[in-house]
Amino acid sequence: MRFSLNQWTTRTWRLPDLAIGCAAEGVTGVGLWREPVADHGLARTGKLMRDHGLAVTSLCRGGFFQERDALADNRRAIEEAAALGAPVLCLVAGGLPDGSRDLDGARSRVAELIAELAPYAGEHGVRLAIEPLHPMYCSDRCVVSTLRQALDIAAPHPPSQVGVVVDTYHLWWDPDVWEGIARAGVTGRLALFQVADWVTPLPEGVLTGRGMLGDGRIDLRRFRAAVDAAGYTGPIEVEIFNEELWAMPGPSALELTLSRFAQHVL
Amino acid sequence: MRFSLNQWTTRTWRLPDLAIGCAAEGVTGVGLWREPVADHGLARTGKLMRDHGLAVTSLCRGGFFQERDALADNRRAIEEAAALGAPVLCLVAGGLPDGSRDLDGARSRVAELIAELAPYAGEHGVRLAIEPLHPMYCSDRCVVSTLRQALDIAAPHPPSQVGVVVDTYHLWWDPDVWEGIARAGVTGRLALFQVADWVTPLPEGVLTGRGMLGDGRIDLRRFRAAVDAAGYTGPIEVEIFNEELWAMPGPSALELTLSRFAQHVL
Repeated sequence: MRFSLNQWTTRTWRLPDLAIGCAAEGVTGVGLWREPVADHGLARTGKLMRDHGLAVTSLCRGGFFQERDALADNRRAIEEAAALGAPVLCLVAGGLPDGSRDLDGARSRVAELIAELAPYAGEHGVRLAIEPLHPMYCSDRCVVSTLRQALDIAAPHPPSQVGVVVDTYHLWWDPDVWEGIARAGVTGRLALFQVADWVTPLPEGVLTGRGMLGDGRIDLRRFRAAVDAAGYTGPIEVEIFNEELWAMPGPSALELTLSRFAQHVL
Repeated sequence: MRFSLNQWTTRTWRLPDLAIGCAAEGVTGVGLWREPVADHGLARTGKLMRDHGLAVTSLCRGGFFQERDALADNRRAIEEAAALGAPVLCLVAGGLPDGSRDLDGARSRVAELIAELAPYAGEHGVRLAIEPLHPMYCSDRCVVSTLRQALDIAAPHPPSQVGVVVDTYHLWWDPDVWEGIARAGVTGRLALFQVADWVTPLPEGVLTGRGMLGDGRIDLRRFRAAVDAAGYTGPIEVEIFNEELWAMPGPSALELTLSRFAQHVL
């Protein structure tokens, strides 16, 4: 089963209930977030997942390299991923430093800090996965805006230490994305594939407006076929930030997600 | 004076007042929009602008090629630009057709309809200017998301018939934008330069959240220097969609805009 439930899709579902609910549906993978994991306890979360036959497909998230304590915080994130047995730590690069207009400088800093972190990740058996975010997040969340940028930043490092995330929501508009996916395949960089759909109008703040699979404008199956053709055989994480979905009971949200996944992604 | 006031920056300012107000500040150029021009009357607007020493630097907008009557409507827009003496008709390509997920198809259609329209524009002494819009508008307003795409669509046509718009708000995040501006210069495609700043959080619908010059995260002067270096000597249109600015009296909004323009663009 390639389906993996990213925890933020069912953000209000408590971890013990999520584990039971996933196991009941035959789900075998989950993507976790650091804050709820910390709340539940790192070791306890790891045990909970193992007890329910759930692999942790990724940990979200490291990055935010514009912050002063970024290196120390990312080292902790690597350690947490290792403790959970998550092979992948998603990196959201972070935006511009306060008051800055130096986009090139911010992008260079991302590359520098990833170079610092890559060997540490390798020692822990964790792969850093650079996630390009939609350009609408460029100033405040992620200065890495395209798959090509992410691949260029990853290039100097061993593929086992640094890869990329392909998330349909962030990349669907990019005319170069198909070339980028192929390149990620050839260079062994495709660390994680995530899906969400694109719907409008976007909500204020543009954070919580991701669409349920099939509700929007992305040809999700074309993406799935492209990552398959690039040799990706890993999990397909559904990561949807959506207020309506969060208002649903966890089991119903999971059921809907699984059904749409079969209909629009597989 | 390279400053030009795009009418949408002072959206609620009636055309006769705008003409008087611009002339009073020594402004010599304005970018107009079709709807308010039609409301005031096409010939009357042309005369009003001439009477106040105002050149019409561009007409906004043609495009929206996903619509059924796009060709006929764009021919009318070309005729209107010609009647106003506007050298440039801005084209916003339009989004995906209703219910469609065929982004490549929509992009091809844009190229096809521009090919149909280019000679007609040439006959009227009007230059079509393809405006790449920020990727957050890709599904519903503009499938042309990067400067490179716009230049590729323009390439088969005479530069006098088809050029591109460089708008800082839409392109600031693009790592390839500097290369694109240089290419636009070399190939004679730089038809119009527009400026607005990038501020967050974005408002619901993401249409009215453009920032006053200097309030946001764009290195506007770097853009101005880049278009200058590419040989662009035309107007610099300030086009800001912003509710707070629209709530100001026209003369105050213009005064603020001129002051910020001197401070952050020149």
